[in-house]
Amino acid sequence: MTRLKATYEIESPVGVQRAAEVMAGEQSTGTFMRLASETDALRGRSAARLDHIEITGTSSHPALPCRLSAENYEQGRVTISWPMENFGPSLPNILATVAGNLFELAELSAIRLVDLGIPNALATGCPGPQFGIAGTRQLMGVPSGPMIGTIVKPSVGLSAKQTAELVSDLAKADIDFIKDDELQGNGPACPFADRAKLVMQVLNSAAQKSGRKVMYAFNITDEIDAMRRNIDLLESLGATCAMISLNSIGMAGLRAMRDHSPLPIHAHRNGWGLMSRSPHIGVAYSVMQKLWRLAGSDHLHVNGLANKFTEDDDVVTNSARAVQAPLSEARPHVALPVFSSGQTAWQVGPSMELLGNDDFLFCAGGGIMSHPDGPAAGITSLRQAAAAQKAGERVEDYAKDHPELAAALATFKSTVNRN
Amino acid sequence: MTRLKATYEIESPVGVQRAAEVMAGEQSTGTFMRLASETDALRGRSAARLDHIEITGTSSHPALPCRLSAENYEQGRVTISWPMENFGPSLPNILATVAGNLFELAELSAIRLVDLGIPNALATGCPGPQFGIAGTRQLMGVPSGPMIGTIVKPSVGLSAKQTAELVSDLAKADIDFIKDDELQGNGPACPFADRAKLVMQVLNSAAQKSGRKVMYAFNITDEIDAMRRNIDLLESLGATCAMISLNSIGMAGLRAMRDHSPLPIHAHRNGWGLMSRSPHIGVAYSVMQKLWRLAGSDHLHVNGLANKFTEDDDVVTNSARAVQAPLSEARPHVALPVFSSGQTAWQVGPSMELLGNDDFLFCAGGGIMSHPDGPAAGITSLRQAAAAQKAGERVEDYAKDHPELAAALATFKSTVNRN
Repeated sequence: MTRLKATYEIESPVGVQRAAEVMAGEQSTGTFMRLASETDALRGRSAARLDHIEITGTSSHPALPCRLSAENYEQGRVTISWPMENFGPSLPNILATVAGNLFELAELSAIRLVDLGIPNALATGCPGPQFGIAGTRQLMGVPSGPMIGTIVKPSVGLSAKQTAELVSDLAKADIDFIKDDELQGNGPACPFADRAKLVMQVLNSAAQKSGRKVMYAFNITDEIDAMRRNIDLLESLGATCAMISLNSIGMAGLRAMRDHSPLPIHAHRNGWGLMSRSPHIGVAYSVMQKLWRLAGSDHLHVNGLANKFTEDDDVVTNSARAVQAPLSEARPHVALPVFSSGQTAWQVGPSMELLGNDDFLFCAGGGIMSHPDGPAAGITSLRQAAAAQKAGERVEDYAKDHPELAAALATFKSTVNRN
Repeated sequence: MTRLKATYEIESPVGVQRAAEVMAGEQSTGTFMRLASETDALRGRSAARLDHIEITGTSSHPALPCRLSAENYEQGRVTISWPMENFGPSLPNILATVAGNLFELAELSAIRLVDLGIPNALATGCPGPQFGIAGTRQLMGVPSGPMIGTIVKPSVGLSAKQTAELVSDLAKADIDFIKDDELQGNGPACPFADRAKLVMQVLNSAAQKSGRKVMYAFNITDEIDAMRRNIDLLESLGATCAMISLNSIGMAGLRAMRDHSPLPIHAHRNGWGLMSRSPHIGVAYSVMQKLWRLAGSDHLHVNGLANKFTEDDDVVTNSARAVQAPLSEARPHVALPVFSSGQTAWQVGPSMELLGNDDFLFCAGGGIMSHPDGPAAGITSLRQAAAAQKAGERVEDYAKDHPELAAALATFKSTVNRN
């Protein structure tokens, strides 16, 4: 495949065929009036092509406010492709092409970008994850089983010293992974450099005793050069992970961090709902995670089963599977899915079952911190839940001989949809 | 004002008051279970505060798919504020706070961020536009009246040499401004460096004769370091403007370009529809343009009257006014609004009238290129339309003595909504 293929679900007041033609024109050689300079040779070289059109339904009213009106709004699925020569392997320019001036077209009353076919030339032209699943397991010292993580809470408000004290307790409790909250960047109340120094002092010293260094994802999100300096500081302190807010630093910012960082990039998707919650406009996670992997994300958030947000379990499961699926024949670029958001011992087993493996990072905040017997018991309860699933036992049965798990199940009401 | 204030229009299955509390908690010190470490002192220092709540209506069904259901979904407007100490003047971290993990909350069935109150400490802590309106007029040599611009079309497909030939014609036709299309970055078919060199050769040589250099906004959109190199090349060639795709390079990328660039930043918002077209989820342009100005955008696209997209004239007018409105008492950070999309001689006068001034850049593609007497007549027709408006004459009357304007009005059907 030498063309980039994007598939959209659309609805249109002018019919799916005509709307698809406008989309292809607008996003390549056309404008609202055909110009003499748009020659056949130029079109042959650079025009977007309609590869597939499928009519799926019709509606009597437009899904989104639309300047053009019609008696019926036809719905369908269209695939458009572009020659790689239009943009080369440049993700920022690809974004402007497949997700640019399309969402506003008056010829569309709904549009979602739902699939993206990655040509080998793009997969090989992008760096992809530097560590992925295997590299992360190695750095973390967790050869098998779900990696157990937590988030520093309260999200924001702890001083650097208080953060380090909390981290010390969590390290003693044998956690695998800790992350800053996405609200904790480099504010004056908890400066990044102070936090990094104090936390790594604790974790380096704990590693001396345990022989295993807890991975801490420091939220480096900031301006580009500040993020690079943050990474340099992290490296000098012996830290093993850098976290960024994808929607704050953008596709170019992500790639800049990938190119600069000797550490895995923990990619947080906060703000994701804006891009995907509406059924009528947006981008599917299956698409965005491909671009974020191409640009170099090692860990990608996928929400969690029975989360505090609004995505249902099917969406979450498909997102996690997508992150593990090979990106192209040429380069798989597999990343590590991160389950997070209202997670407790109840969701460990179902996550393993639905994903079909345990190559994921399972982050619980309250699910660890609010365990009645303390964080260590909270962490143990999650490992016990994984052991139960691996042994093929019901978690409630396994809990009979495992008091930490029993206490967790009792404390955190089951909200997981079980089949 | 020492706190950052964000106002949201929301709808909720749990009531506006409760939903607002969840929003404030989620975006500051809270999580789904209250932790012992969330002390009163910590809350006093760092918690988000509910400043205002207003109930505006109710609905029997949720506007967006929502995991929580209710008999009624209450609608309202809520203002939440944060202490600047939580994030400092860091726009990427502010974005994660005001537009982060909110859009997905199960307690919300609709959410739009509609206003942002900028504290002086933020306005003074950010660079803002380097050139703005006055600096752009000076560089362009257009002391008064609307600045007239065009877009290289076909959007993509011309070689560097063909682009320079087109630019030569446009310079001879006395245009003020030309921009690359957002689809034209640095693809193998039209490499950035080749294009920049050939185009600036033409424009420098034209300036020797005319005494005035056409401003060309080269689309530098790419990875961070490549964009910096692109800017360096532009500076060495005597170019006077750099264009970026905001949604491709992100807030941190924009700021990096502002800090590096000796040229004005022409900020293109392609993909904007994704953030704002749904009435139920998104961010208002009045908010995003503030952040984009703080980060250093000199020119900001606002669509155009009677455009080929779906925004109506009120939205466009309000967007243009917003870009010209002072950002805070401490620093106005005013930017130049750019009208674009299906613009012709018909829309010049109404744009001046609705905005109340002529401090804008008016970009017409087909409206110049497709003028029956050629691009020079197209450009003249736009200046004549501005003169008519300034003289207080109807454009149709003014056209009687101005053949270029008459031909434009006849060729491009009026689609402007006139009151």
